Amino acid sequence: MSQDTTLGELLELANRFRDERDWRQFHNPKDAAISLVLESAELLEHTQWKNGEPLAAAMRENSAEVADELADIFYWVLVMAHDLDIDLADAFKQKLLKNAEKYPVDKAKGRAVKYTEL
Amino acid sequence: MSQDTTLGELLELANRFRDERDWRQFHNPKDAAISLVLESAELLEHTQWKNGEPLAAAMRENSAEVADELADIFYWVLVMAHDLDIDLADAFKQKLLKNAEKYPVDKAKGRAVKYTEL
Amino acid sequence: MSQDTTLGELLELANRFRDERDWRQFHNPKDAAISLVLESAELLEHTQWKNGEPLAAAMRENSAEVADELADIFYWVLVMAHDLDIDLADAFKQKLLKNAEKYPVDKAKGRAVKYTEL
Amino acid sequence: MSQDTTLGELLELANRFRDERDWRQFHNPKDAAISLVLESAELLEHTQWKNGEPLAAAMRENSAEVADELADIFYWVLVMAHDLDIDLADAFKQKLLKNAEKYPVDKAKGRAVKYTEL
Repeated sequence: MSQDTTLGELLELANRFRDERDWRQFHNPKDAAISLVLESAELLEHTQWKNGEPLAAAMRENSAEVADELADIFYWVLVMAHDLDIDLADAFKQKLLKNAEKYPVDKAKGRAVKYTEL
Repeated sequence: MSQDTTLGELLELANRFRDERDWRQFHNPKDAAISLVLESAELLEHTQWKNGEPLAAAMRENSAEVADELADIFYWVLVMAHDLDIDLADAFKQKLLKNAEKYPVDKAKGRAVKYTEL
Repeated sequence: MSQDTTLGELLELANRFRDERDWRQFHNPKDAAISLVLESAELLEHTQWKNGEPLAAAMRENSAEVADELADIFYWVLVMAHDLDIDLADAFKQKLLKNAEKYPVDKAKGRAVKYTEL
Repeated sequence: MSQDTTLGELLELANRFRDERDWRQFHNPKDAAISLVLESAELLEHTQWKNGEPLAAAMRENSAEVADELADIFYWVLVMAHDLDIDLADAFKQKLLKNAEKYPVDKAKGRAVKYTEL
C-alpha cells in the first residue's frame, strides 16, 4: 500500500534521478528554495479566481496536474532536507510538537487565526 | 531509523494535529496552496543576499529554522494530497517518470536548463 | 495631487535611499526578484483564511500594513527596472497592448479564464 | 520622457483595460495578491540556476520577458492600491521614511542584513 512507502525509498528515487543527470552540482540551497516557491506558485495558480464548489470542481478536473505539482514540491523537500543533513521525519515531528505548544487545543480549537492573535 | 518512516505515519500525525484543533474545515485547496507559497517564501528568505560559502554557513547556523520550514511545507503537501484524494507516493513516482522523459539522460546530463531548451 | 506623482520622482527617492546606505552593490536581479516574491507573499498572507466581507474587513483593518507591502513591492519594481535599463512606463504600456491582443474584448468580457482557454 | 509618466496616467490605462473586459468584478484582494505572487515567481524563474555574469547575460537576453513580468507586477500594484483606496505615492514615501528609521545610515551602510540584526 502506498501509505507504507517510506521517505527513504522516495529519497532514493529522487537521488537516482538527479545523479543519472549529474544534477546534484546545481542543487544549492538558494536555487532549491526558489524551486519550492516556483512549484508552489504553479499549484496556487490552479486555485485562482475561484472558491467553493467551482474550486473543488477545478481540483477534480485538474487532479493530474495538481498531483504533479505536489510531487514536484515533495521532491524538493526531500532532496533539500537530504543535502542539508536534515532528518525530515524528525523535523516534521518536532515541528508538530512546537506547533502544538503555539496553538494549544483549548485556545486554537475551531479558530483560523495566527498564534499571535490567540 | 528515520528514513524508514512511512508517509502514512506522518499523515496520521498531521491529521491528528489538525483534528484536535478542528481545523480541517479551514483547509480548502486555495488557502492550503497559499500556505505552501508562504512557507516556501520563508525558507527562501533564509537564502537571500548570499551565495557560496556564506550561504552554506547560513544554512548551518539556521539549520533548526530551515528544518522547521521544510517540515511546514511537508505538512501542507501531505494534508493537501490527502484532502484531494491524491496518492502522494504514486504521484511522486509518476512525476519522476514524466521528468525522465522530459529530461532524457543523454540530453540533460550536466545541464541546468529547462526541458524546452534541451 | 498624488496621482500626479511621476515614476521619476519615486525612483529618485528609492535611489537616494539605497545610495545613502551603499546598498546598490547588493541589488542583483536574483535577490531583487526574491524580494518581490517575499513582499508579495507577505501581502498574500493578509488575505489568507478569509473571503468576501471578512476579507474586505481585514483589508480595511490592516490597511496600513497592506499599504506598506504594496509600497515594498513597488520599490523593487522601480529599482529592478532601473537597474536592468527597462523603461517601466513603456514596458507597462506595451504589456497592456499585448494583453489586449491575448484577451480580445469580445472573447474575454466578463470571463476570468486564462487566454489559453478563451 | 517616460520618467515623467504619472501614476494616474498608468492607473487610468489599467482601469480602462479591465473595464473594457468587465473584469473589475473579479479583482478581490485575495486573487489580486495571488497574481502578485504568480507574476513575481515568473520573474524569479528567469534568475534561477545562475549568478554573476551568466545571470546578467540572461537578463539582457530575456529583457523583453523580464520587462513584461515587471509590467505585470506593476499592474497589480496599481489596481490593488486603487481598489483598496490606498494612495500609492503616499504609501511609497511613508514606507521609505519607516525604512529609513529601521535602517539608520550609520548602522546599515554597506550591510545586507535584516534590521533585526543591525
